[in-house]
Amino acid sequence: MNQVRIGLIGFGYWGPNLARNFHAIPDCDLSAICDTNPERLQKARGLYRATRYFATVEELLASDIDAVAIATPARTHYTLARTALLADKHVFVEKPLAMSVTEAQELVGLAERLGKVLMVGHVFEYNPAVRHVKKLLQEGAIGDVYYLYSTRVNLGRVQSDINALWSIAPHDISIALFLLEQMPEQVSARGARYLNGSVEDVVFLTLHFPGGVLAHVHASWLDPSKVRRTTVVGSKKMIIYDELAAEGKVKVYDKGVIRATDAQYGEYQYRLHSGDITIPKLPLLEPLRVECEDFIHAIRHGVAPATDGHNGLRVVRVLEAAQQSLEQEGRPVWL
Amino acid sequence: MNQVRIGLIGFGYWGPNLARNFHAIPDCDLSAICDTNPERLQKARGLYRATRYFATVEELLASDIDAVAIATPARTHYTLARTALLADKHVFVEKPLAMSVTEAQELVGLAERLGKVLMVGHVFEYNPAVRHVKKLLQEGAIGDVYYLYSTRVNLGRVQSDINALWSIAPHDISIALFLLEQMPEQVSARGARYLNGSVEDVVFLTLHFPGGVLAHVHASWLDPSKVRRTTVVGSKKMIIYDELAAEGKVKVYDKGVIRATDAQYGEYQYRLHSGDITIPKLPLLEPLRVECEDFIHAIRHGVAPATDGHNGLRVVRVLEAAQQSLEQEGRPVWL
Amino acid sequence: MNQVRIGLIGFGYWGPNLARNFHAIPDCDLSAICDTNPERLQKARGLYRATRYFATVEELLASDIDAVAIATPARTHYTLARTALLADKHVFVEKPLAMSVTEAQELVGLAERLGKVLMVGHVFEYNPAVRHVKKLLQEGAIGDVYYLYSTRVNLGRVQSDINALWSIAPHDISIALFLLEQMPEQVSARGARYLNGSVEDVVFLTLHFPGGVLAHVHASWLDPSKVRRTTVVGSKKMIIYDELAAEGKVKVYDKGVIRATDAQYGEYQYRLHSGDITIPKLPLLEPLRVECEDFIHAIRHGVAPATDGHNGLRVVRVLEAAQQSLEQEGRPVWL
Amino acid sequence: MNQVRIGLIGFGYWGPNLARNFHAIPDCDLSAICDTNPERLQKARGLYRATRYFATVEELLASDIDAVAIATPARTHYTLARTALLADKHVFVEKPLAMSVTEAQELVGLAERLGKVLMVGHVFEYNPAVRHVKKLLQEGAIGDVYYLYSTRVNLGRVQSDINALWSIAPHDISIALFLLEQMPEQVSARGARYLNGSVEDVVFLTLHFPGGVLAHVHASWLDPSKVRRTTVVGSKKMIIYDELAAEGKVKVYDKGVIRATDAQYGEYQYRLHSGDITIPKLPLLEPLRVECEDFIHAIRHGVAPATDGHNGLRVVRVLEAAQQSLEQEGRPVWL
Repeated sequence: MNQVRIGLIGFGYWGPNLARNFHAIPDCDLSAICDTNPERLQKARGLYRATRYFATVEELLASDIDAVAIATPARTHYTLARTALLADKHVFVEKPLAMSVTEAQELVGLAERLGKVLMVGHVFEYNPAVRHVKKLLQEGAIGDVYYLYSTRVNLGRVQSDINALWSIAPHDISIALFLLEQMPEQVSARGARYLNGSVEDVVFLTLHFPGGVLAHVHASWLDPSKVRRTTVVGSKKMIIYDELAAEGKVKVYDKGVIRATDAQYGEYQYRLHSGDITIPKLPLLEPLRVECEDFIHAIRHGVAPATDGHNGLRVVRVLEAAQQSLEQEGRPVWL
Repeated sequence: MNQVRIGLIGFGYWGPNLARNFHAIPDCDLSAICDTNPERLQKARGLYRATRYFATVEELLASDIDAVAIATPARTHYTLARTALLADKHVFVEKPLAMSVTEAQELVGLAERLGKVLMVGHVFEYNPAVRHVKKLLQEGAIGDVYYLYSTRVNLGRVQSDINALWSIAPHDISIALFLLEQMPEQVSARGARYLNGSVEDVVFLTLHFPGGVLAHVHASWLDPSKVRRTTVVGSKKMIIYDELAAEGKVKVYDKGVIRATDAQYGEYQYRLHSGDITIPKLPLLEPLRVECEDFIHAIRHGVAPATDGHNGLRVVRVLEAAQQSLEQEGRPVWL
Repeated sequence: MNQVRIGLIGFGYWGPNLARNFHAIPDCDLSAICDTNPERLQKARGLYRATRYFATVEELLASDIDAVAIATPARTHYTLARTALLADKHVFVEKPLAMSVTEAQELVGLAERLGKVLMVGHVFEYNPAVRHVKKLLQEGAIGDVYYLYSTRVNLGRVQSDINALWSIAPHDISIALFLLEQMPEQVSARGARYLNGSVEDVVFLTLHFPGGVLAHVHASWLDPSKVRRTTVVGSKKMIIYDELAAEGKVKVYDKGVIRATDAQYGEYQYRLHSGDITIPKLPLLEPLRVECEDFIHAIRHGVAPATDGHNGLRVVRVLEAAQQSLEQEGRPVWL
Repeated sequence: MNQVRIGLIGFGYWGPNLARNFHAIPDCDLSAICDTNPERLQKARGLYRATRYFATVEELLASDIDAVAIATPARTHYTLARTALLADKHVFVEKPLAMSVTEAQELVGLAERLGKVLMVGHVFEYNPAVRHVKKLLQEGAIGDVYYLYSTRVNLGRVQSDINALWSIAPHDISIALFLLEQMPEQVSARGARYLNGSVEDVVFLTLHFPGGVLAHVHASWLDPSKVRRTTVVGSKKMIIYDELAAEGKVKVYDKGVIRATDAQYGEYQYRLHSGDITIPKLPLLEPLRVECEDFIHAIRHGVAPATDGHNGLRVVRVLEAAQQSLEQEGRPVWL
């Protein structure tokens, strides 16, 4: 098979990163880029000279490309992905896959019917640090998983069309589902709007999984600190994954709980122990590169990518439930 | 007036800290200590030789003391404080003041009727760092307060009689009420029990204040990190108070939000700016010492201490509502 | 004047960074690149399509370029710079300017005689953080400068032809001379060779300035930590410049010394005080970009760049004296 | 044998820490304290009621004590220790043992002749973290030791009678000799005097050991940071011991150097590798307590303590040579 010809839709905030990676993958040809903003197109033109440039999606889809990568505002994902699938293209779309379960389901069904790859950019599932944490969980190294919590805050990009739940939390929901390998049965979310009457700037989200495992997410674009961290607490060990750590993104704490069976009437029936801390060496891979390669690989070999449409749909299910809870002052919503 | 004669009830985890401070205050005489555990009494005996020791509260209350300090398990606070007030003693009680609003109200009423000082050990309201943050808020330095959140986690003392909400979160509720100077109108809480079927080891708590200000608390005794931190986000500046920071407990970020009135159709209608960071020099005072001195001062001068019974009652109101929410899967509870 | 046509010599470790910046400067045309290694040339070819590629310096110098940028091993700097000057080109050369004072002097004289710009890549003199520190010193904010010390260590590139003194320490010597605006009168250096019998992997260097000011440098490519930090101690304030700090590269400590004139026979005749810490907001500029722009600006306007040949010669003077000291077990060498 | 009766000489900066520990050791009786300063004596009186108090050393030595602990200014150590030995007492003396090799040798000889324990307070040799590092070295875990360096700086106690070399560096010299188990053959030191014309506030010290191992010490009481850290670089692994680390004082880096035998003409003949980092769990012991217990144990069992007179003498040998180097602008001094 020849190189996969990719057409990139959107060259704003994230599109340039996709362009850089697709351009660098040997099996892939960054064949065309479209953006309705002429300045952005001009900027792209300076970087990739062999690529064609279009001002409309229609023109792009009419060109001889095999696949599209969509890096546009979240509210356009569904329509663009649907149009591209119907134009017989494989589709990579940034997170979230869509703004509702209905839309996401339609995209998944359409891709299956048409035999096209549908992939969503949950990039943390390609992150060597997150994959290492999952390996530790799968090996049973941390014992029973009790709970996990993520903090993803920054003084960052304020969105006006979607809230911090749909903008930031998809990453943490994706990480939680990936690590726990199951869906939550109940979701609740609280948030507040400060900058803008219409969207939440800060959101606190709780997912309840079968068996009592809990995942909590704190997402905000209005914070003095820049934090991207997930803590996993298990019965034998605990793990901190800190994307911004200077010295090792994953720390494994040999801390845990011992059921003190001989304790007869003590105040503490459990003994907590702290032990060694290990910071494993991780491979130096750019997660986005691995992700883009997975898209190309899926197209060339006719297999599902790790973050396929079903994966994206699951995250949208959680987001939709969380949005309902958010609109009802945190009332728990069952999935 | 002579020295205030203090009788300390409980020489377990926290009692020794109270003993050390009351012993060091010139206006105060650590007159007697009681504990039902002979080993603890023996330990105290080695430290304070001029003090009398009792095995029962009855004996202690029968001795010539002016006031008691209660550092016993939370479920005993109400009964012991009530008994001491009825024995005509001023009462300092560790947080929480009581395990229900009804009990706390009774104590407040009793102290007022009997003309006795009733004080609860919300020690962070005496912390120079917290007081500095409050000063900044009062001066308007940070603009409008948008929200604050506290994290108080550790691999710490597992309680079997009360959950992390009643054991750990009173500190953060006290800090939030102290800084915001108002009561929340709505409270929700989620938590989970891992070590013990009966009490939550980890709790996530959200307080909604009039005007949309939000306070979030994450409390856990089952965590790999030791964190004691509160972040306050305002329209002009943001503050991080980190009790465990190596270099300055309070950091003031000249970060804020500018309403970009000239933005016509841009993606961002708000511009976030980051600026200088300032770490103010704070006085080197032990908060517990200041707290104990406030109790002695209140007794000697017939004035209310900063964390009086009403203060303690307010925290119990929030705790009781949070407990109800916790038992109803996070349903918001109105105060 | 048209764009300055730059020919880059060397596309190994550092050359690609120069290429990227010269390519991005509007007044500059990255006209040609040469490298004797075909793989490197091939790599460059993939990045800059309008540039010509040569396998020899002779070919490059014969092409229609105005200036060269030299990013080759240190021992080749003198010969290449000399050849380029004699070919009537302006010359930018990476640090150190040359491997001896004699060579450096010859280059400075040659450039002056031929009326060409000679610039050396002491990039930290273009770093906004270092420039901010200098501004504080110039304003007298820190009082008298007592001493400064730099640590530049890493598990990094092991050189086989030059030692850590000539490879790493030029940065810190450049920073020290830049901040203090004078030459040391005496230099001593100690080091040790572990990996290779011929060059030192770790070097400790001390510069004595007139008036007793001292600068100490610790340079190593054999260290578990990655540190790039300079501390300046003054009578009124102290400054830490940490290139790798997550939150603010410059910290200004309102710490200093008060001469306690009233102390009569106390143990301490000086009182040290600690005060606020300030982390100033710095402009977000890539120092290398500013440096490259200064070269282009110097050529276009016939002015000296900030880090001109004289600047580079001063650093070589210190390096040569330090090398002598190193070879004599740390005996102090006068300049 | 009964409890060892200890007389403490000096209740200033460090004496109270010795008093607290000797008081807490069951085999020991803190029998008497002397200090020429009445205020200090009064302060001690408030803490230890069963202890006798003296205003002169003569009175103390005339009392029925078995041993003395000397915590007075460094320049008095020799005379006091000598007097106490001649009065037939076992002697613990704070570091440095004496201000010259001649004095230290006399003390060692006197103690041996009189059959008394002579111990010097090199407390870091009792520190669990330092002992763990030594264990790793002894096991060969880090391969060949290449070099180590210590930083001990602070905005701290400014001394007027001794410089930073004699005041601060004894700790790091003690650690280096303890870890490397040999004496340096050559010492050089540079320093500078800022606050006071007579003593150095900052000192940089280099020790050369047989076989090329190097130890560097940076000691200062005039620094914005508080650092107490030693780095050990070996061929297989590297270790950082940081006394003030929040999370684990010892970090073991699986970083090292591989001799790349197959490299034919590459720029790097050595490959550096980085690997896992491990933070071992260490026992929670107060080093000073272990030290005081060793003194009591040595007296009771007639054995040498870990930091006996010979140990103290070795450190003084290095200090004396370093002082000579300091006075000769860093000229290397052979031991």
